[in-house]
Amino acid sequence: MLNKLFLLFSLLSSVIAQNATQQQLAHQNRTLSFGVVIFPGYEPLDVYGPLEIMIQLSQTYPITLSIISHKVGPVTSRAPPHRMDPSGPLMEFDSMIGSSTVATHTFENAPELDAILVPGGIGVFALVTTNDTSVEDFVVERFDRAEYILTVCNGATLVARSGLMNGLPATATKSVWNIVTAEGESYKGKGIKWMPSARWVETEKVWSSSGVSAGMDMMAAWTKHFYGGSEVGKMLNGIEYAAHTDPHWDPFSVVHKVPGADTNRSLEDCAGPAAQ
Amino acid sequence: MLNKLFLLFSLLSSVIAQNATQQQLAHQNRTLSFGVVIFPGYEPLDVYGPLEIMIQLSQTYPITLSIISHKVGPVTSRAPPHRMDPSGPLMEFDSMIGSSTVATHTFENAPELDAILVPGGIGVFALVTTNDTSVEDFVVERFDRAEYILTVCNGATLVARSGLMNGLPATATKSVWNIVTAEGESYKGKGIKWMPSARWVETEKVWSSSGVSAGMDMMAAWTKHFYGGSEVGKMLNGIEYAAHTDPHWDPFSVVHKVPGADTNRSLEDCAGPAAQ
Repeated sequence: MLNKLFLLFSLLSSVIAQNATQQQLAHQNRTLSFGVVIFPGYEPLDVYGPLEIMIQLSQTYPITLSIISHKVGPVTSRAPPHRMDPSGPLMEFDSMIGSSTVATHTFENAPELDAILVPGGIGVFALVTTNDTSVEDFVVERFDRAEYILTVCNGATLVARSGLMNGLPATATKSVWNIVTAEGESYKGKGIKWMPSARWVETEKVWSSSGVSAGMDMMAAWTKHFYGGSEVGKMLNGIEYAAHTDPHWDPFSVVHKVPGADTNRSLEDCAGPAAQ
Repeated sequence: MLNKLFLLFSLLSSVIAQNATQQQLAHQNRTLSFGVVIFPGYEPLDVYGPLEIMIQLSQTYPITLSIISHKVGPVTSRAPPHRMDPSGPLMEFDSMIGSSTVATHTFENAPELDAILVPGGIGVFALVTTNDTSVEDFVVERFDRAEYILTVCNGATLVARSGLMNGLPATATKSVWNIVTAEGESYKGKGIKWMPSARWVETEKVWSSSGVSAGMDMMAAWTKHFYGGSEVGKMLNGIEYAAHTDPHWDPFSVVHKVPGADTNRSLEDCAGPAAQ
């Protein structure tokens, strides 16, 4: 009996020390099936910023990773040539360098996924203008069984177009805000509440972040939300990253003159201090 | 004649507007051959943080990219099992997730390179403890013909061991500072001036940065140094990244209690404001 009381006390202390909720403790002890969608012309840092965080946390928590695309094998980050509208000029990206990441699964054979990350990149424009709705259809097919869909940069365009953001607040890259939000309101997308000053936006199942680097800030916040803060703080110190900590403030909304951006805050007030 | 004078005036105005030196202007107009070394267990963000910056700049400046490893083809970021010393336990990383990046060249057939990036990762420990000196020997062989060697995190260990940092100031990840600096002083490495509070260190040919995320800050500074500031500032706004701007101040040196770290500065004073 004393042993059991001691065990209970230890468990309670551990909970208090970590400030973790019952749900976060349950998350720490189950295997999370994490999926990342890629396509030709994905933005490397949209993928690898968040992925670095998940890779680090896989030292502590059970996580599996699937990298999902049209085909298994290498997928280039170089954007395919495309026209922004049918009568427009063919945009080529011959001078741009890029690298290839190996997809482990296709949209058809990906395993059950608990969380799905959709990055952006020039390739999103190519998917949209060639009416390739593979990503939209994939997230719709998986939505009911998944717990979270996470977007970075103009990855939000694809999830918006899937209809899964309809009526929800969301954000996206501030650098091409008008194009991205307009494209998001096409195909099945309608009535998204685009947040001009958000670094990232949290809803029950769909989280979205601003451009490229902002994916790391969203993932820092999302992993704290999912697992609790203790190990995530250590992980951020481990990768020596001072994350933006305020989801409601994105200084780049002012830099890129996004309509409706909050212009009252200092551009210096943009990243949190190093954690201790 | 008037046309020529006008052209000259336009060119001069452009130079003044960009604050670019003659050398930076020359760099803007030549093709930079950029190489990234990878090996099993490289740290993804060490590679893709700096690479994102180079990819973005390849929209403006002529750049070629080679990704160089032991073999051409996919290289996993998952660390191979290894012992930290011959009598120590076998460390396995079975639970860790990872992804694969495609190497385009080998250490033997890589083209002429102007700048070479050496990332870190758990894989560095595996290379060192198995006496695999491929990276050290490669950078030594290429050093005279290359203009810059850039390291991220414990990638500094490998370049230190090559002997190319002997007598020079350098820095590395603060999270495992003692191991990394001690390992750097082995093989041909000796008498490196390790800088405990530096976010990154600039020397004539060898630049080194602190852990993981710090690679982006070094690359922001290095590309400004190489090309001039104007397009680099736009690029940082494009990827919505608020870089650390002071090479001499790394708040994580205090977080990780690095001997000799400057403890007089605020941990909040760690990232620059968004550029405008």
